Amino acid sequence: MSGIDLYLALIHHPVVNKKGAIIASALTTIDMHDIARAAMTFGARGLYVVTPLEDQKILGREVIDHWTRGIGGELNPFRKEALELIRITSTFAEAVADIEKRSQGPVTTAATSAAAHKSSTGINEFAAMLDRNTPHIIAFGTAWGLSPDFIRQCDHILEPVWGTTGYNHLSVRSAVSIILDRLVNGRGVVN
Amino acid sequence: MSGIDLYLALIHHPVVNKKGAIIASALTTIDMHDIARAAMTFGARGLYVVTPLEDQKILGREVIDHWTRGIGGELNPFRKEALELIRITSTFAEAVADIEKRSQGPVTTAATSAAAHKSSTGINEFAAMLDRNTPHIIAFGTAWGLSPDFIRQCDHILEPVWGTTGYNHLSVRSAVSIILDRLVNGRGVVN
Repeated sequence: MSGIDLYLALIHHPVVNKKGAIIASALTTIDMHDIARAAMTFGARGLYVVTPLEDQKILGREVIDHWTRGIGGELNPFRKEALELIRITSTFAEAVADIEKRSQGPVTTAATSAAAHKSSTGINEFAAMLDRNTPHIIAFGTAWGLSPDFIRQCDHILEPVWGTTGYNHLSVRSAVSIILDRLVNGRGVVN
Repeated sequence: MSGIDLYLALIHHPVVNKKGAIIASALTTIDMHDIARAAMTFGARGLYVVTPLEDQKILGREVIDHWTRGIGGELNPFRKEALELIRITSTFAEAVADIEKRSQGPVTTAATSAAAHKSSTGINEFAAMLDRNTPHIIAFGTAWGLSPDFIRQCDHILEPVWGTTGYNHLSVRSAVSIILDRLVNGRGVVN
C-alpha cells in the first residue's frame, strides 16, 4: 500500500475567511510538519504547499531547508525525511502539472470540505479509485476552507469527516490525519 | 456514542526527551486547540492538560480564558465550546481523581506509545471496554513520549498507530485524532 499514487495539497489561496470572502492565508509552519509526517506514515508521495504570496513561499522554503539541509535534519532525521516530501507552488494547477510531468496518467483531483455536498464521494469509493494506479491529489483548505469555485473545479468532493456529535470543526492537521488513515486502513468499512 | 465515558490527558511530565531523559516539556498551545476540537468531534468528555510547571499552568489557563470568556469566544463559538473541555492539573493522578469524583466507577487508564509493547491492547478491544460505562482516560505524551515508568503504571498500553510505511513519527495532534476516530468509527475493523 505504500505504493499508492496519492499526493496532498495544502491550499492557502483561494480559501475563505469567516465571512466567506476569498483570501490568501498565511502559512502555519506546524501544518507542514504535521501533514508531511502523516503523509510519510500513510505512504502519500508528496505534499504541495500552495501559496501565491512571495513572502510565504520564502518562509515555506526556509522551513524545508532548515529541516532537510540545515541543522534540523542532523538533529532529527525523521523530520528531514518527512519535510523532503514538500514542494511549494503558486497555484494548485502548478501542483497538478508537476505530478503530470512525473506520471503516466492524468491526475484525478479531490477537494475536501467540512460542509455536506450533494454529490460527494465516500472515502471507500475514493480509496478504491486509488487502486487504478493513476495519480490522485487531495486538496485541503486552510483558514475557513477551500473556496466554492475551487471545490467545484475538482473532480471529486470527499465526504466530510464526521465524528459522533455533530461538531465538525477539526483542525486541518486532524482532518488530513483521519482522512489518510481512513483511506489506507479503513477500506471496506461502512461508516 | 456521544455518551462514551472517555477522557484524554496530554502529559507534559513525566515525558522523555530525545535522549530518553525525563523532562517537563513546555505547553504547545496549538495542541490544546487541536486536541480539544478532536475531543468535541468524537464525544470525549474532557481533556486534562497535565503540567507541574506553574508558569505553564498559567499559560494554559490564559489560553482557555481567552477562548471561553474573552474576545476569542465571541469571535469563534466553536472554539469556545471545545476549549471548555480542558482542565489543567499538576499530575495525571490529579486528573484521575477528578474523574473519580464525578463518576460512579473506578477509572481505567491507558497509555499511548509509538513503540511496540508486548502486552498492548488493540484499539477494538479498548473500544469494547468503553461500552462498560465506567470512565476511561487515555494519556498522550508530548516531547518524545511518555516515560517508561508512567506507561508501566497505566492499566493498558494502546497499540501504536501504524500506517503502511514503517514510519511512525506522527505529531501528538495527529495521533490523538486517528486514535479517537478508530475508537469511535473503526469498531469491528481488523487492522
